[in-house]
Amino acid sequence: MPSVRPERTAYPPEGARGGVRCAGMRSLPILGMAPDWDVTEWLGPQPPATTLAGLRGQVVLIEAFQMLCPGCVNHGLPLANKVHASFGPDVTVIGLHTVFEHHAAMEPVSLKAFLHECRIGFPVGVDRPQGRGMPATMERYAMEGTPTMLLIDRDGQLRTQAFGKVDELAMGMVLGGLIAEEWTPDPGPEETPPR
Amino acid sequence: MPSVRPERTAYPPEGARGGVRCAGMRSLPILGMAPDWDVTEWLGPQPPATTLAGLRGQVVLIEAFQMLCPGCVNHGLPLANKVHASFGPDVTVIGLHTVFEHHAAMEPVSLKAFLHECRIGFPVGVDRPQGRGMPATMERYAMEGTPTMLLIDRDGQLRTQAFGKVDELAMGMVLGGLIAEEWTPDPGPEETPPR
Amino acid sequence: MPSVRPERTAYPPEGARGGVRCAGMRSLPILGMAPDWDVTEWLGPQPPATTLAGLRGQVVLIEAFQMLCPGCVNHGLPLANKVHASFGPDVTVIGLHTVFEHHAAMEPVSLKAFLHECRIGFPVGVDRPQGRGMPATMERYAMEGTPTMLLIDRDGQLRTQAFGKVDELAMGMVLGGLIAEEWTPDPGPEETPPR
Amino acid sequence: MPSVRPERTAYPPEGARGGVRCAGMRSLPILGMAPDWDVTEWLGPQPPATTLAGLRGQVVLIEAFQMLCPGCVNHGLPLANKVHASFGPDVTVIGLHTVFEHHAAMEPVSLKAFLHECRIGFPVGVDRPQGRGMPATMERYAMEGTPTMLLIDRDGQLRTQAFGKVDELAMGMVLGGLIAEEWTPDPGPEETPPR
Repeated sequence: MPSVRPERTAYPPEGARGGVRCAGMRSLPILGMAPDWDVTEWLGPQPPATTLAGLRGQVVLIEAFQMLCPGCVNHGLPLANKVHASFGPDVTVIGLHTVFEHHAAMEPVSLKAFLHECRIGFPVGVDRPQGRGMPATMERYAMEGTPTMLLIDRDGQLRTQAFGKVDELAMGMVLGGLIAEEWTPDPGPEETPPR
Repeated sequence: MPSVRPERTAYPPEGARGGVRCAGMRSLPILGMAPDWDVTEWLGPQPPATTLAGLRGQVVLIEAFQMLCPGCVNHGLPLANKVHASFGPDVTVIGLHTVFEHHAAMEPVSLKAFLHECRIGFPVGVDRPQGRGMPATMERYAMEGTPTMLLIDRDGQLRTQAFGKVDELAMGMVLGGLIAEEWTPDPGPEETPPR
Repeated sequence: MPSVRPERTAYPPEGARGGVRCAGMRSLPILGMAPDWDVTEWLGPQPPATTLAGLRGQVVLIEAFQMLCPGCVNHGLPLANKVHASFGPDVTVIGLHTVFEHHAAMEPVSLKAFLHECRIGFPVGVDRPQGRGMPATMERYAMEGTPTMLLIDRDGQLRTQAFGKVDELAMGMVLGGLIAEEWTPDPGPEETPPR
Repeated sequence: MPSVRPERTAYPPEGARGGVRCAGMRSLPILGMAPDWDVTEWLGPQPPATTLAGLRGQVVLIEAFQMLCPGCVNHGLPLANKVHASFGPDVTVIGLHTVFEHHAAMEPVSLKAFLHECRIGFPVGVDRPQGRGMPATMERYAMEGTPTMLLIDRDGQLRTQAFGKVDELAMGMVLGGLIAEEWTPDPGPEETPPR
């Protein structure tokens, strides 16, 4: 029986959004199944899977950003890059370019140069545009803006959705807790025994 | 059966000292039972227990420092204070004043003023002096200098001994992992059933 | 007679490039007349003059940058913005977008969004492109890369050309020295007295 | 005639205290003649003069601090040390240990160890104690607390008195301005020509 696994709680738990809150790590809330991303194009290294479901069994950090968002350039992306460089085998890091303003200024040609200059080492998906407003994945998660960091457990459950600057110590505590959680692959539907 | 508990390894594991190394959290090494401290005096708030054995079941961070050590003032103590303030219920933080140089300059009267000025919120024990050299606890742990951070699991096992500046993300990952580890109190010697 | 004005020295003085060197402020070198910029377009607030010659009598800081250069975003531009915000009346700050790589990614439409997002408060000129290589002004100054900071005195003389991260204290010392230099407007060619 | 020398203004000019204010460097206020220090003991390297009057012709930075004041350890002293290390020939840096609290904890024996550990490279005078309150020099300057930074021009005039954290750029601007000021030694009282 899994012993450190927190109880599943109703979605959304009070106070779960808007920051990394770590007191009481043993009951890190479950925010529900993380919706899949909707990506039109991948830049940088190939992603280990093209759907989120393909990453079951892995702790996943999704960094949603815009290349012209100063908080992303100064805080969000460097921290995601640090997790990728330091804890790569334990945490799968995926970038998501969620353009919701200045669309013409952040086309893939600009993004590609940006990723090269900022030495982003993880795969980055372009969130599907929907006209002048929020792109598709950003809307699914009801993100408040950029940067937004999503932490997803081995079962594909969203465990943290943090908008803005994230504290390194707090994020490390959450990641350490997620990595330590036991995981048993779902055996799939029971086979009907042959008669 | 506990599933996330790492295998017990021989002491000392290669490369376990000298820094927080976190890749492969699932196999965070066991450095052996953490020796108890030897303290002559407590300053600040009362410690939750006067021996380390009294803290079984708790994740413990011991910050060994000297009040006149710049690395302690600028890095070690602020980080220990942050853990205490932010994750108090999950991590028990204990300071240890390990004076191994300039003894006359760091008497308890000076330490007391220092703790007040630096707003240290956790209990601080004075490591037992042994003449002009290293004090007793510092010697037991064979510390290389100050600051030294010790992370001790719920079973009283030393899991990390880090000398110098510690990275917040890495330390958060270790703490998150230690907090997530299952713990069952030792039932003690089996009672002989009454005849 | 100007008393604090340094001696004019041969161009280029040994060791004048590659960093802000301030020891011996009284002999801050003269690197020769600062070449004018060659700009195709201005973004942000209107510049106080469209040629450098129009700024005689003012201490001028020119910040040459690329919007996708991390050193510019993290160091160069924030420092230029700080000088502009804090010492506006004493120092005229001009930005210069010197694109020498990833040209398609840094078109004016992208730059405009970038300046808005980064809250750049000073006028920015687009350095005249010359195909795929260095733009015109960058070439005139033989800049080594971006960010490059140029400090120009009230007489239009180049006094510092610093590539890379600039120390705030050192830059403040240079600026304080330039501001303190006496300046008498050139009376222009002597009129022929009427017969 | 000195041209960049500011006009002498009444003491104290409005708004001159409480921070480094640099806009309008050409009129950096004169706060009056800087009172001499009253020092019982010197630690570290010998001071270049034992009275402030002995430093005429030099730009002087006096860093008033307490060894157990976190703002001094984290900000004031490192900045004073940086000025000393980088601009030594241009600025004479003097430390002043102004103990106004926790007197027993900051005796010279502790201060000496502190200066060694913090690698303070400039001479430090112990401000003359006056019982449990402010020491003598601190009182003469009516300092608000520690750290306090005093900037004194070549004529011995106090030009800046800043309490708390000082911005590096702003301080550099002030220092650059003071260094650039012309200075002619006072010829002393005119000799009566021999008859």
